[in-house]
Amino acid sequence: MGHYDISGCYILNPSAMKVWKLIRAFFDAEIEKMDVEEYCFPMFVSPACLEKEKDHIEGFSPELPTQIAIRPTSETAIYPYFSKWIRGHRDLPLKLNQWVNVVRWEFSDPVPFIRSREFLWQEGHTAFATKSEADKEVFDILQIYSDVYEKLLAVPVIKGMKSENEKFAGGLYTSSVEAFIPAAGRGVQAATSHCLGQNFAKMFDISFEDKEGHRSLVWQNSWGLSTRSIGVMIMTHGDDKGLVFPPLVAPVQVVVIPVPFSGVDTKIIYEACEAVKSTLLEAGIRAKADTRDNYACGWKYSDWEQKGVPLRIEIGPRDLAKNQVRIVRRDNGAKADLSREGLIEQVKDLLGKIQENLFDAAKRKVDACTQKVETWDDFMEALNQKKLILAPWCDEVEVERLVKEHTKTETAAATAKTLCTPLEQPELNEGTLCFASGKPAKKWSYWGRSY
Amino acid sequence: MGHYDISGCYILNPSAMKVWKLIRAFFDAEIEKMDVEEYCFPMFVSPACLEKEKDHIEGFSPELPTQIAIRPTSETAIYPYFSKWIRGHRDLPLKLNQWVNVVRWEFSDPVPFIRSREFLWQEGHTAFATKSEADKEVFDILQIYSDVYEKLLAVPVIKGMKSENEKFAGGLYTSSVEAFIPAAGRGVQAATSHCLGQNFAKMFDISFEDKEGHRSLVWQNSWGLSTRSIGVMIMTHGDDKGLVFPPLVAPVQVVVIPVPFSGVDTKIIYEACEAVKSTLLEAGIRAKADTRDNYACGWKYSDWEQKGVPLRIEIGPRDLAKNQVRIVRRDNGAKADLSREGLIEQVKDLLGKIQENLFDAAKRKVDACTQKVETWDDFMEALNQKKLILAPWCDEVEVERLVKEHTKTETAAATAKTLCTPLEQPELNEGTLCFASGKPAKKWSYWGRSY
Repeated sequence: MGHYDISGCYILNPSAMKVWKLIRAFFDAEIEKMDVEEYCFPMFVSPACLEKEKDHIEGFSPELPTQIAIRPTSETAIYPYFSKWIRGHRDLPLKLNQWVNVVRWEFSDPVPFIRSREFLWQEGHTAFATKSEADKEVFDILQIYSDVYEKLLAVPVIKGMKSENEKFAGGLYTSSVEAFIPAAGRGVQAATSHCLGQNFAKMFDISFEDKEGHRSLVWQNSWGLSTRSIGVMIMTHGDDKGLVFPPLVAPVQVVVIPVPFSGVDTKIIYEACEAVKSTLLEAGIRAKADTRDNYACGWKYSDWEQKGVPLRIEIGPRDLAKNQVRIVRRDNGAKADLSREGLIEQVKDLLGKIQENLFDAAKRKVDACTQKVETWDDFMEALNQKKLILAPWCDEVEVERLVKEHTKTETAAATAKTLCTPLEQPELNEGTLCFASGKPAKKWSYWGRSY
Repeated sequence: MGHYDISGCYILNPSAMKVWKLIRAFFDAEIEKMDVEEYCFPMFVSPACLEKEKDHIEGFSPELPTQIAIRPTSETAIYPYFSKWIRGHRDLPLKLNQWVNVVRWEFSDPVPFIRSREFLWQEGHTAFATKSEADKEVFDILQIYSDVYEKLLAVPVIKGMKSENEKFAGGLYTSSVEAFIPAAGRGVQAATSHCLGQNFAKMFDISFEDKEGHRSLVWQNSWGLSTRSIGVMIMTHGDDKGLVFPPLVAPVQVVVIPVPFSGVDTKIIYEACEAVKSTLLEAGIRAKADTRDNYACGWKYSDWEQKGVPLRIEIGPRDLAKNQVRIVRRDNGAKADLSREGLIEQVKDLLGKIQENLFDAAKRKVDACTQKVETWDDFMEALNQKKLILAPWCDEVEVERLVKEHTKTETAAATAKTLCTPLEQPELNEGTLCFASGKPAKKWSYWGRSY
């Protein structure tokens, strides 16, 4: 990720692109099983289409002074064609996805990966004959998003529902996965899966004739995951030494570094490093040997630590003599000597353990700064301690608005709002009151500051 | 490919995206061997960068009335960073590639895939310490482009050099692969690989310190292949029945269609089709079974022919009884009965033959309409017969300009120009004169109308 001379635009470097490619392959394989087909719509949207749904667009303000706009998301670009393509019940379900760039210019505080003016994402757009099919898909997709984060990126997330205030404008309801960055004390919306209901179907006239010859509006969903995911991964695992990549998405999983000794033949050591690298590559492990001769090995250690490579292999004369290698883990600094016999299996095993440990460590950190509160005072105290707060809520729009207002005045930083109402609900004892309004609570919701 | 409500913008459908994905996988595997790394630069370019190279940009006119422009190509977006990233000889070679969308608004006659206002492409940008390294890469990349067309898309192309008039503005020289569409009598520039020399290095101050401590400008290349390739493939192979996909890039390689007979148990036939499909899928063949019950099999045959599926398998009661299937080739209509024993090997073999035959047939057609001429009269006659013309040329800029002018006035359609000077040159006998100027000829070049 590099800075660029237009504010809010960033250069995605080879590491970021590699992670994105792996996320894409993982996600594509999953949605292919669901018969979602890949399209690519133009990035320009005509004003005629855009103006059909002003509410939805207002939050994005993508308009150019010219006659066309660049997509902030593609509902208005795609749904006129849903209207043309869908005639009868045999045309349903219609499921498409595209991997494209989108542009949002409305904010003034860009953060690399997390909030950029142009970003890459996938956006899925689907239409069904019935609400129950649409409902099911919303949560099937949400589970895939959860898997992308937890299984691939080793980032713990919470599956839940957005509040009325925070849902996608123009949709029926929004589900999301939410991550939390303890060091920043901020939540981050990690991906969203929306049920649009029949609102867009009405606006864009998307209807079908059922088996009995009656016309009905379709039920629609849309869902998106962006390069923000890379930022969440970086913030979750990074430490003072630099990046830490989970093995499954690490651009380089293992780096092999020669440790020459004065008086010992360097060539043999370099050759051993190349040999080990080749063995790893053949086994499908993304490996590199750092045989640069203009850097000392200590310098190389820091360099690759900073780059976040999960596993380092060092080979010196003593290792050679013993037919072993020294390994050093990036996640916990643990060192061990491994025999070169059966090295591949041992390395695979270690990479699996590092992946698991990164998730577990991240989960422990988030758990440690999650706090259940039931009163306004406890809420404010927890907020000031940068906590992820779980609180009983009356679920009223006006109350969330007031919480925002109060946290704006009482603290200097970003306001607090609902992050989500988790699908997995703690028991709500009868008589529990809303932490903010004192009215009867309807649910437990997560609150906090967010990116 | 679908039409869109903004002129010159098109919707890429799942078939097009599948072909593009396969091209991308093929090309990425090749350039990975060359240590090219994937980046993604923003699509917006600041005016400061854009104005550094006005000549280069003039042909694209991408400026918006706002303060930023959308990339027509990314030289001006990327090279300011080359200038920052390249310090010493150890930073070279620098090789990057990106798969992105670009926008060109300057023309008034869009053609789906072939000339669209927004299109997808890959653009490679590389920098070297020496001209010879840059020269070598230009032609290594050109060979990969040739392979994409000939091996993957079964489209014959000519490798050659663009004339001074037709080369990339601001570059040193341009090589290209050129295709020819006999039915249209038009050439089409299929991909380009440019040596930029040191022109951009001068403008953007991209220099390095060599081992001796001297500063030198880098030598640069850029190279691109776009979704135009899909259009060239469609125009090359399509016939009056519709699309024809070469097997290697066919989104569906084999379609299995049940042929039910009245009085015979339909269920067994449908099950046999599903079973054959599954066997094909397991063998890595992209197969579908068309078990829709609301269409007759004749209707299905035409439907899949129109969609260009290379091989059709029909299964009826008689085939079932004989443990065989009926196959029909899309490329030549040939039919045969194949035993279900060893079906996979036979199908793979057939797909290979279809791929080969499509290339051979296309090659024969282009060869048949290629004509060698040595005089202006023969040139004009060949041009009016929609030929691809190979003619001896004095290689003067002014002469190409005059040929354009004359072909504009004498014929109503697009003007004729050089397509390329083929790398593989026929012998040029001493005393051969330029077909247009009568001056001594320096080379054989291809001429014709083009897209």
